This record gives sequence, C-alpha cells and structure tokens, in this order.
Amino acid sequence: MAFDTKAVREVLDAARAAGRTALTAPEGKRITDAYTIPTPAEGLATTADEAVALADRIGFPVAMKIVSPQILHKTDAGGVRVGVASAEEARTAFTEIVTSAKAYDPQAGITGVQVQQMVPAGQEVLVGAVTDPTFGKVVAFGLGGVLVEVVKDITFRLAPAGHDDALSMLDSIKAAEVLNGVRGGKAVDREALAGLIVKVSQLAADFPEIAEVDLNPVFATEDGVLAADVRILLTDARPAERRRYTREEILGAMRRLMEPRSVTVIGASNEQGKIGNSVMRNLIDGGFPGEIHPVNPKADDILGRKAYKTVTDVPGDVDVAVFAIPAKFVPAALAEVGRKGIPNAVLIPSGFAETGEHELQQRIVDIAEEHGVRLLGPNIYGYYSPWQDLCATFCTPYDVKGGVALTSQSGGIGMAILGFARTTKTGVSAIVGLGNKSDVDEDDLLTYFGEDPHTQCIAMHLEDLKDGRAFVEAARATVPKKPVVVLKAGRTSAGAKAAGSHTGALAGDDAVYEDVLRQAGVIRAPGLNEMLEYARALPVMPAPKGDNVVIITGAGGSGVLLSDAIVDNGLSLMEIPPDLDEAFRGFIPPFGAAGNPIDITGGEPPSTYEATIRLGLEDPRIHALVLGYWHTIVTPPMVFAELTAKAVAEARAKGIEKPVVASLAGDVEVEEACQYLFERGVVAYPYTTEKPVAALGAKYRWARAAGLL
Amino acid sequence: MAFDTKAVREVLDAARAAGRTALTAPEGKRITDAYTIPTPAEGLATTADEAVALADRIGFPVAMKIVSPQILHKTDAGGVRVGVASAEEARTAFTEIVTSAKAYDPQAGITGVQVQQMVPAGQEVLVGAVTDPTFGKVVAFGLGGVLVEVVKDITFRLAPAGHDDALSMLDSIKAAEVLNGVRGGKAVDREALAGLIVKVSQLAADFPEIAEVDLNPVFATEDGVLAADVRILLTDARPAERRRYTREEILGAMRRLMEPRSVTVIGASNEQGKIGNSVMRNLIDGGFPGEIHPVNPKADDILGRKAYKTVTDVPGDVDVAVFAIPAKFVPAALAEVGRKGIPNAVLIPSGFAETGEHELQQRIVDIAEEHGVRLLGPNIYGYYSPWQDLCATFCTPYDVKGGVALTSQSGGIGMAILGFARTTKTGVSAIVGLGNKSDVDEDDLLTYFGEDPHTQCIAMHLEDLKDGRAFVEAARATVPKKPVVVLKAGRTSAGAKAAGSHTGALAGDDAVYEDVLRQAGVIRAPGLNEMLEYARALPVMPAPKGDNVVIITGAGGSGVLLSDAIVDNGLSLMEIPPDLDEAFRGFIPPFGAAGNPIDITGGEPPSTYEATIRLGLEDPRIHALVLGYWHTIVTPPMVFAELTAKAVAEARAKGIEKPVVASLAGDVEVEEACQYLFERGVVAYPYTTEKPVAALGAKYRWARAAGLL
Repeated sequence: MAFDTKAVREVLDAARAAGRTALTAPEGKRITDAYTIPTPAEGLATTADEAVALADRIGFPVAMKIVSPQILHKTDAGGVRVGVASAEEARTAFTEIVTSAKAYDPQAGITGVQVQQMVPAGQEVLVGAVTDPTFGKVVAFGLGGVLVEVVKDITFRLAPAGHDDALSMLDSIKAAEVLNGVRGGKAVDREALAGLIVKVSQLAADFPEIAEVDLNPVFATEDGVLAADVRILLTDARPAERRRYTREEILGAMRRLMEPRSVTVIGASNEQGKIGNSVMRNLIDGGFPGEIHPVNPKADDILGRKAYKTVTDVPGDVDVAVFAIPAKFVPAALAEVGRKGIPNAVLIPSGFAETGEHELQQRIVDIAEEHGVRLLGPNIYGYYSPWQDLCATFCTPYDVKGGVALTSQSGGIGMAILGFARTTKTGVSAIVGLGNKSDVDEDDLLTYFGEDPHTQCIAMHLEDLKDGRAFVEAARATVPKKPVVVLKAGRTSAGAKAAGSHTGALAGDDAVYEDVLRQAGVIRAPGLNEMLEYARALPVMPAPKGDNVVIITGAGGSGVLLSDAIVDNGLSLMEIPPDLDEAFRGFIPPFGAAGNPIDITGGEPPSTYEATIRLGLEDPRIHALVLGYWHTIVTPPMVFAELTAKAVAEARAKGIEKPVVASLAGDVEVEEACQYLFERGVVAYPYTTEKPVAALGAKYRWARAAGLL
Repeated sequence: MAFDTKAVREVLDAARAAGRTALTAPEGKRITDAYTIPTPAEGLATTADEAVALADRIGFPVAMKIVSPQILHKTDAGGVRVGVASAEEARTAFTEIVTSAKAYDPQAGITGVQVQQMVPAGQEVLVGAVTDPTFGKVVAFGLGGVLVEVVKDITFRLAPAGHDDALSMLDSIKAAEVLNGVRGGKAVDREALAGLIVKVSQLAADFPEIAEVDLNPVFATEDGVLAADVRILLTDARPAERRRYTREEILGAMRRLMEPRSVTVIGASNEQGKIGNSVMRNLIDGGFPGEIHPVNPKADDILGRKAYKTVTDVPGDVDVAVFAIPAKFVPAALAEVGRKGIPNAVLIPSGFAETGEHELQQRIVDIAEEHGVRLLGPNIYGYYSPWQDLCATFCTPYDVKGGVALTSQSGGIGMAILGFARTTKTGVSAIVGLGNKSDVDEDDLLTYFGEDPHTQCIAMHLEDLKDGRAFVEAARATVPKKPVVVLKAGRTSAGAKAAGSHTGALAGDDAVYEDVLRQAGVIRAPGLNEMLEYARALPVMPAPKGDNVVIITGAGGSGVLLSDAIVDNGLSLMEIPPDLDEAFRGFIPPFGAAGNPIDITGGEPPSTYEATIRLGLEDPRIHALVLGYWHTIVTPPMVFAELTAKAVAEARAKGIEKPVVASLAGDVEVEEACQYLFERGVVAYPYTTEKPVAALGAKYRWARAAGLL
C-alpha cells in the first residue's frame, strides 16, 4: 500500500517544532487520512455558528468534542457530547463544552470543537501501537469497552504486521467468538479489520518518533471499520544502536567458538581449587583433541602443558581464549587477545555489570569491538561442546553426546541443566552460559545451532533479550529446521523485579513476550523443569504428520487423566472410524472400551499391548500414540518396555515415524522401564500422566510453527 | 428471612397440574415477589387499551414483552420492545408484538403482553440456580452480556448459599473489578447483590422441582438491584435416594476396616499367581499382628494357617472379609459374610458395573444393605493400613509408616501411588482402592481419616462423586484439622467422556466441581504428579502463621524463577522492612541484592547460607522461607543440606515452626541433598523452581481454608 508519508512527516515535524508530544485531533485526522484509516466525517468549529453549519453538512445526529492540546482526557473535562440531534442542540453543546473545558483547565488553549459523524452501532474494538523496550514497535488489538480493559484481553504482534499476522490477531483474543457474531449479532468485516491493523502497524513502523497510537474505540461492523477516536503520542527517545554482525560473521565466529582447534586459558593454574586449574583439568580430562595452551606469567608448565607468559606468545592461530583471571585484569588481557587475532573471548570472571561495575563492562565491550573479538559472558560458568569433547568450564565435565543445545543466562540454572542432563542421560550438543550477555547473545547462538548438524533442538533460559528483533529473526530462520524452547524468567511482575535486581535487565511486558515469541514460532516453557523435559524429549520424537492422537491404555484411570492432558495441551483425540474401531476391538476383551482412549483393560497379557500398539503404529490415519501402562504381574514393566520399543523399532525400519509417548503407572520398576523406553525413542515417564502429553504437545506446537501441519 | 413459600407452592402446583415445566412471566413474578426479589413494576395487558393504561400507570418509557407458555426466546419471536415512550407507541407495539409472535409460532397460545418499568442503567449481571448431577442445587453468578457469555466468567456455590458465600461470589469472577466501578463507573450495592444471590439460592433449595432459575439480566446499581427478566424451569425428576449412614456408623465401620483385629480371606489359595495367594502372602509378609483366617472349601491349610470351608466356620469376631473369588461367586459368599456379622467386605474381583454387569453389582449392594455390611469396591487392588502392618492387596507390600492417606478410584493410579511412595520414601497412613464405589465412598474414608491420629493429610484421586453433598460435608468437617487434596480426573470434556466409558460415572460440570471443591476447602491438584507431590510435601511442612514469604537464594537466576512461582501460586513476597533489610545486608556481599529475593550471590561459603537462613527462621515477621541453592565448590550440596536441616531443627527446638522449601540447582549430588532435606522437614526438589513453591502454595491454600490465616 502507498501511504502519504510526506503528509505525516509534516504533521510530526510541526508538532515537534512546537514542542508537543501529544497530537491534536485534527493532526490525528491528517495522519489517519494519510494512511487511509477510515474515520468519521468531521470538521473543526471555532464558533457555535460554525458548529451548527458543520453538523448540518455532516447530518444529524453528530458527536461534539473539545479540541485542546492540553486536554487529553476529553470526557473528564466535560468536553464530549454525543447524539446531538438538532441545530439548537449543537449550538448549546458548543457553549457548554467550551465552558466546561475552561473550568477544567483554565490554562488550556482551546482550539475549537470537533463536530463528528455519529458512528454506526457495531462491535467496539481497540487497535493501537506501542513501543516495547525489548521488541520495539508492536501493534495491539483487543475488544473495546470497560470489561475487556478489566480482563486484559489483548494481543500483540511485531510492527509492521502483515495481513496474515493481522488476521491471526482476531483469533488470538479470548473473546474471539464475539467477532464472529454471537446471539444474533453479525460477524464483523474481518478483512477490513485486519487491513486497519496492518495500516496502524505500518504507521508506527514508518515513524520512529511515534511512541504510541491508540484507535479506541474502533467500530467494527459487517460493512467495515471506523476509528472513532485517535490518539497519537510522540517521543524524542531513540533506542541505542547496537552493533550488528552479518549472518556470515556470526556463523564464522560461533563455529570457531563451538568447534575450536586451539584453545588458550588465560590464568591457567596448577593450584587446585582455582578456576584456572578447574578449566585446564576439564579441558584435558574431557579429552579435547585440539591444542590447549595455558597462559600464566609465573609458570613454565601447567598440568604437563607448556605455559606462556602472555597470550601473544602462544603459537599459531587460536580460536578461543578462556579467561580465568579477576575482572580488573580482563581489559589488558583482552586487548592482547585482540592483537593476537583470537576471535572469541570466554569471560568466566564476575565483577562486571552484575555487581554494578557497568563502566568496566563497557570498557571490555569497547576493546572487543575495536579488535573484532566476540565476548561470551562475563560472569559465566563457561561452556560445553560435547561433540568436540570440549568442557571449557570450571564445573564438572559432561560427555553424553546428543541433539539438544542448551543455554542459560544464569549460572545456577546452568548447574541445574548439568545435573538434570546427567541424571536423565540427556544427549547434549552444547551447554552455554550467557551471563551478562555483554556481546554474544541468544540470537548469535541460535543462528549457529540452527546450522549445527548435531543440534536437533535448542532450549534457552533467559531473563531478557538485549535485542528482541534480532532474536525473532534468528528464531524464524531456525524454527522451520528444529524446535526452539524458551524459558523466559521474570514472567510475573515479582519475577521481573527480581530479574531487574539480578542483571540490571529491563524486563519487557510479558504479554508482549508471550505473543511475539509465539509469533516467532518458539515453544515457551512455563517453568524450569518443563524446559528441561522438553529439551530431553523433543529430539527423541519424530515430527507428527497429522493431528490424530490415539490413547491406548491398560489403566482406564490413566486414560481419563491422559484425555484431560490431551485437551490441556491443545491436542486432538482422534475420532476412530468404524473399521479401525472394529480392528482394535478384535484385540481387546469384550468389556474393554474401544473408541478413544482405547481401554485394553488392566489384566491383559503382553500380546494385547503389542497387538494394539502395532495397529496404532501401522494405521496411517493415526499420527501419534499416547500409551498408558498399568503394572500387573501378567505384563511387568520391562516386558511392556521391551515389546513397545521393539514395535516402534520395527515400524521405523518400515519407514513409519510417529511420536510415541507413554505414562507408566506402577511400582518402582517402572522407572527403569521409562529410561529404557526413552533411550529407544519413546518419551516415557513414571507416576505422571501430564508430562508425556506435555512433551507431545510441545512437539505439536513446534510442528505447527514449522509449517509441517 | 421469611419467604412466602405457600405462594410459590401454589404457582408450582398449578403449573405442574397444567403439565408445564416452564413458568410464564406472571408466574415468575409471583414467585420473585414471594421471595422478595426486586423486579420492575409491571402488569399483563391482554388488549392494546390495557397496555396503554398500564404503561401510563407505570410511567413512560416502558418495555413490552410477549407472554406465551410456548415462547421462551422472546426476542427471537419479535416479542420484545423497549423504550416505548408514549401511549401511541404502546398501542402500536402491542399489535406488532402479538402479530410477530403468531407468525413465529402459530401454535403458541398468547396470554398477553407484559408491560414493564424500564430498568435503570447499571451493571448487567446474571443470578441463577441450576441442578448439578453431582452436587444438586447450585447458585450461579456472573456478569451479564454477550461478552461474558463468550468468556464464561461465572461462579457457583452450593444452594442455599449464606450471605458470606454470596459475597465471596462477587470476588470470584475474573471481571470482579467491574463491580467496584471502573473508569468513573460507580460501585454496585454489594450487600443488595449478595442478598439477591441468597434469595435465589434459597428458592432453588426450598423447592426440589425447580430445576433452573435464571435472572438475566439483573441490573445492579449503587442503589440496589432489579431483576429485569425471570425464567424458571421445573422438572419431575427426583434424584435417587441414597442410603445414608450416621457419622458414628461410618466411623464404627471404617475403624474396623482400617484397624482390624481379625481378617478373613475368601478364596485364599496356596497356588502362586492366584490373587487369593498374593493377598495371603502380603498379609503374612506384611507382618499383620492380628488374626488371619483363610477360607477355601478345598484346602485344610493355606500358607501354614488353618483354612475354613466357609466364612461361617471362622472362629470369633471378624472385622474384614477380603474377597479373592470370581464375581459370580460373590453374592453367595457375601450373604454368608452378612450372616456371620462381618461389617466390611473388601471386593477385589472385577466383573461388575465396569464390565457392564450392573445387575450383579446391584445384587451385592442389596445383599450388603440387608445385612449391614459395608462394601469396599468391587474392582480394586485392595488396601494398605501401614500403621497396622496391614497389606490387604494382591500388589506388592508397602511399609513406610507416615502421615498421608491416599485413595484412588482407579487401580492404575493406585499402582502409581505405590511406586511413587516407594521411590520417594513417602510415609503413608493408608492407601485404599475405591474402584466401582458400590458403597464405601470418599466421604466415608474422609470421615475416618479426619479422626485418625496417624493421618496428617489426605489425597484422593476420583473420577466422580456418588454424593457430592456428603463429600462436601465430610471435607468441611476434615479441612479445619488436616489438608485434603483432590485430583478430579475428567476435568475436560474429553476426559469426562473417557471417565464415562470407564466406570459409567456421570461426570459433573467441571466449573461446578472447581467452585464447590474450593468452597469445601479442598486443595485441587491439577494432575497426578501434583497430587502425589502435595501428598508427600504437605505433612512435612508446619502450617504458616502469616502471609510473608521470603526467598533466600545463592543463584540470582533461581530467585527470578522462584519469584514467578510465588506469583503463580498466589503467595506474597514480603516487603522487607528497613531494619530487616539492614540485618540481611550484614551477611551478604555488597554487590548481593537484599530486598526480596535476598540474593546472597553464588560464590558464598556455608556461613552465608547459614546466617541468612537462621535470620529468616528467627525473625517473627517472616512466615515462610523459600531457599534457592546453587551448587558450588565452596558450598557443596550436602553441606548446604546439613546446615539447613540443622538450622531448621534448632529453630524447631526453640518453638519456631515455619514452612521451609528449597530448590536445588546443581549437579546430581543435589538429589541426595533433597532427599536428606525432605526427611528433615524441608520440602526440597532438584532441577525445578516450580515444585517447591507449588507445595508451599498448596499448604497456604489449606491454611486459608482451615481459617488459620
């Protein structure tokens, strides 16, 4: 669409020249006209006679509103009259409005009274745009009215929003049904409403100084939309420019970080208990096959490796310099790293922004930018790259290679990742501490993990995003290839306050995070344990090829709870067609319940589980299986696990790939059976009906975001 | 309040005599008048002249509505006019309404046209009453209007509801704020609105044949309430009367069930793999010190105990007969049990209602009622009473004595309870299978557990309640003494459908369950794992004495997530007063964050954890502690666990009892540390910030329901 940006520019420049940040109604009208945003016919009257003439031209009834740069809340000022039905009423209204406004604010300049076409009865909605601290310009949509304000039923998208994004907003509010017409009401014109959202989002995106646009109410009818009130606020604040790297630059640096051939440890030490000693030992004990060069001015030899006085003495090209020295020595050492041409500095030390040392942190950022060195940290535990046998950390080594890459902003969460991964034997492609994120950020790593052939799933703990747009861009490029799970800490205002005191990060409004992360196709984990479980489970499951989920259960009670979980996770229990129902019935006792869940009943031998699971795998109309196992003497846990794993393996050998998850109810032997199943591609949990279905739900959310369904 | 029940009785009798289940508007008016429910001034006009006269008397403008027993949806029939402003308009409206109604339904009898006072502008609300299949008469409250209908913002209470219950309903809807007046609106008259709810609930409760009352809309203003439209529906259906036992009868039978001195096993067997063999072995191996009498017509001796041909041959008083014989033999054996005067039959066999054998089940219920035998089951795994060393089950024995009593409707869930309890070493006072619930129900067991000194917490898995009112009564009597956790399966419509096919149980509307269970003070677990974790954690924690929760964390990242969890669980982060803040700052590094969370920072030695935890325990203004631990070399997991357990034990020795929960982030050693802490009264979990706070939240919900806060 071609909009008259020149007209808007003139209005904005004039307002700013006058030192104003709030636009008047006529200014708003010029802007909405420039962006073809439909508004009621109207005009400005400066005398009662003009008001009458205008009203007559527009046609009665009209609405009349005070116009004053100082008066934003017109109703409060007694400055609004609606349903003005005659010339006489218009004359009276003009006088009363001006009198009220003067009484309300004697300092206010009165430009005049706006006379406006009365809007048609329709659904009141709100379309607006705001500037989010994390994501920049976002467009908002919700129903108008007091009630929605109370229940906060509103949805956001990045601006500018495309037509499809805008249409998706209409379905994203809780009261979406209202737009389709309820109780005899007519459906609103969805295309017109989406078009209005697109225009408002474009306006906000086109003009950085527009801080806020508020069309409220907009009247939406079956015939179109009409913005009855327009409010536009300007700002002088410009977001700080952040240094941007190209995708190729990012990939180049991250590849050398995650797949280095040569690593140096600045502050390497022979003294047990020192961080520089732990890092050296982990590099060596972890079996890193590349070069390891300790740097220590006072030692000749560290753990059997030749030590160098300074990093400039280290021979050959070095990919990564791990810093294990106190914060105050970092700037000088970092400059040397820069001069040596090492592309990555891993800054383990704390004592930077997180302890209030913002200047020190800015200094190292400046040095790094000068030399083109990328900084990981500071204030981190280091990182793991298991496929390279690389443990560049002062924590304990980890060596189970696998498909999940995990990052954490916080060291404590990093340790929880490590313990969880170890106890569940989760295969990992990377664990990376991000700490203060002075430079390398989630979007850098996401870009790399998206290309990394070892990584099948990415899980990130974060408290903020330094550059929300860059993250969304990286996520959008990655999600079609592999799932991205995000645990956003500081969801609640109490959490955000705690995040603020922790890293000085300004936590964005969670409603915006929620909608924008979904728009980016990210799977948001509600808590730490869910993030860890999703990370463990997602790489194990193949992608579903359709929506039909079938529950096969030996425990009717589990079937009920699994059905609840199916609904909670937005999944669909398949309506079983008669021939398939018949086929299942052939395997189960007459008092068992076919349908869905398929209740094979508790006393059944292994052959019943096996026959029904095989049928579930082989029928192409079924897209995912949820198994409920009940521990009995007839079919012990490991017997169930073995027959299930065998059926799944044989199906895969035939090219049948479906997600299979299982809930095992039984005595403690079910724990071993779950581990056995997990290692063989079946996501299985004991003592819970919720977790396996939540994992399946996460896989489906990804498959939808990736466009596979 | 004294209501004119006689007037209502007359109206209802007349309507039923006429074979009608829907009342006309004038009939509704008589009923609302009898219950002093305020409605607009009105009258019935049968001619246009009468309509004009009436309107004149009431005062213009008026509303006019068709009155016809056949026409329920008056608007659809073109039978409603509002804002009728003059005699002329009233005359026209009368004719048009009657014409439209006749066109809409030519068969409809037209009683006339109701002429009604126009209601004042106010907040539209809905007050109604419905008959719930589980709980009987319940009263409903919500905001009126299309939007609320769409977002389903409605709340329920048992009818009759008291004034406090009614007031609590005003705060229970999501849009509660609207009633307080928003955007310059005035607050509604809460007392009048609560009074109206009480009246409607009393009306529904007083007349069993009133199936449904619907006052919609009611206009609530600052001055009072006015019910603008009244709809009352009648029913002929009477709920089946259920045999009721007195509290003393229930306690007598349940005591003999759970603390028996003599148990007989009908169908005891020497043959391995038979249920009658497993039950005998579990009784003997479990160490039950009372008498164990096998009954088997073909054996002289079972597992070294003298066997009897029939139960009548068993010597002395017997408390419990465990049935391990096929379903078809149960009726005859049960009659013998009855004749022998045994008060409890534990029916393990399946093959009753759950397989469609409803008649067989009814037969055993009849036999049991005839002899005064209480039935547990059928279709169950049996039950455990660890403090009696009693394992009357065919599953594996369990012997960790403790404070939690668990019941399950489903055998599969029972097995999950067993495995979970065993792996977590949860101390148990009872595990009971309820199966088909032909007789003994959750309310019987709740009554017993409420009195049982070993039981500190009760957790129940259920798919339905046979008698919702009896359950609520038992819960209300129990909750002030100990927490009751309920996992209601079949929350969702898919789950309820699965429940229906499982036990033939008619699942009630979950919205009613949700509100009524909360009204009864029950803690509802959202899923199986939560039920199990709450059951494990609640007896470990003392009751909180106030709302002030403080987080002390070594990991800032955990602090943020713990803060999120605090909000999610409806808890309050204490505002730390300056002197206390100062005291905490005395222990933590200068760059640590006091406030709440108190971030002691990650590198701190054990003494920092210890000093801050002790301060948290000892300051009487703090009521609960949430600890975030970060695994470091300086303070390893078991060091943290030991110092924390010691501080808590020493505080308890001084009479300081506060709930303390902990989230441990670290390598796998944190698992052992969590188990150590749990066994010493600190609810601790690894790799999750959510679970410990959820457990604390459950404890707070109970403390509030029990009136302790």
